[in-house]
Amino acid sequence: MKKIVLIRHGQSQYNLENRFTGWYDCPLSGHGVSEAKKAARLLKENDFLFDEAYTSLLKRAIDTLNIILSELNQEWIPVNKTWRLNEKHYGVLQGLNKKETAEKYGEEQVLLWRRGFAVRPAPLDTNDERSPFKDRRYKNVPSQYLPLTESLKDAIARCLPYWQEEIFPSLKRNRQIIVAAHGNSLRGIVKYLKNISDKDIASFNLPTAVPYVFEFDENLNYARDYFLGDEREIKKLMQQTASQGGK
Amino acid sequence: MKKIVLIRHGQSQYNLENRFTGWYDCPLSGHGVSEAKKAARLLKENDFLFDEAYTSLLKRAIDTLNIILSELNQEWIPVNKTWRLNEKHYGVLQGLNKKETAEKYGEEQVLLWRRGFAVRPAPLDTNDERSPFKDRRYKNVPSQYLPLTESLKDAIARCLPYWQEEIFPSLKRNRQIIVAAHGNSLRGIVKYLKNISDKDIASFNLPTAVPYVFEFDENLNYARDYFLGDEREIKKLMQQTASQGGK
Repeated sequence: MKKIVLIRHGQSQYNLENRFTGWYDCPLSGHGVSEAKKAARLLKENDFLFDEAYTSLLKRAIDTLNIILSELNQEWIPVNKTWRLNEKHYGVLQGLNKKETAEKYGEEQVLLWRRGFAVRPAPLDTNDERSPFKDRRYKNVPSQYLPLTESLKDAIARCLPYWQEEIFPSLKRNRQIIVAAHGNSLRGIVKYLKNISDKDIASFNLPTAVPYVFEFDENLNYARDYFLGDEREIKKLMQQTASQGGK
Repeated sequence: MKKIVLIRHGQSQYNLENRFTGWYDCPLSGHGVSEAKKAARLLKENDFLFDEAYTSLLKRAIDTLNIILSELNQEWIPVNKTWRLNEKHYGVLQGLNKKETAEKYGEEQVLLWRRGFAVRPAPLDTNDERSPFKDRRYKNVPSQYLPLTESLKDAIARCLPYWQEEIFPSLKRNRQIIVAAHGNSLRGIVKYLKNISDKDIASFNLPTAVPYVFEFDENLNYARDYFLGDEREIKKLMQQTASQGGK
């Protein structure tokens, strides 16, 4: 079987501080580094031999990938990086504490911002220091494409062309691929692969740094999907992610 | 000015054990990791902003690069990996201790194997576990290209096409490039850029993990070259490298 492993980055410094991150380029926390190493052990135990990797332009995803490939001695594979796999852009919320934001605007509003399928936080100003227009890593992206805020719907819409044009077709030449990215860009891919409704995808919570394997037959037809690791532990991790942002 | 930074990987586990490494995929030593971090500090102090990176298919060069890019928060740049930047292939010597080899074959012979411009150690057998034909990372390289041993001349000859076709022309679209590679592949590039004779290049010893900057004007004409860091310390490092392999 051909395999694509999706992996959400390990805990970041902002996750630890319970802050909205989005496109802010925050490093992994110490715990996040351990999570990535644990993911590598699981992949090693299951004899994964990757041919190619995909990741975002954000440090926490790239570091998660680099740690995994280093532990597997598979750093020599081609690694493709794209803004299209970035986390959902959180507009003016980026950097704010989730709990404080909930106290100020109410839990319901924060849940809408976090999980409402088509709800966008207020946009950043183009000249805001946090704007992607101020960041040279996006200099080759057409300015019409660069967001100043995004809903989950927006994030999925800009992620999927890359999945359809680059990642999935690479299975023609590859047997095993790894995609290290973010909660919301990976939601887009999972929604597409498993045909999940707009309503249901918002409450689907990927655990951090747990390898999520999709198998395809030789004609690249979807066969099955499963997480690597202890089932009960994974459930607990998924619930923890879901409960962030409460008061 | 446009800039290309050449950097030889930090100390590897085999360097530390004074063994011939070549294409053996040996990790950095703890000291090698510190050297890479120090190089990153020098590049940061000198405000380097890289646009693209090149490295070999060997862990010690890739890790040196990843550490540097991580410290600079520039991991998002494209990283191109190629077998053509690999270290010189050391044939049957790979894995042997340099001192023991000198005791067995004589210091003079070892110096010839290490520094003789057109001298090749005895080749590996195609079926040897250490052969590149047994390593999936080379599966897309035409078998006619894959060496079982190399002289410095051979290593330079297979390195330069990549320099000429990929690295140097990328300065048209880029301002600053970093090339993390090995003593002998970098010797080839330096020989070419500075028009060093076959005889003199063998005694040119690049220090490990010291950024070596080449500057070019807007028409990509060579302007000047210099090392970053303390001049006396760099000289000492170059002498240390030169004296390896004695009894």
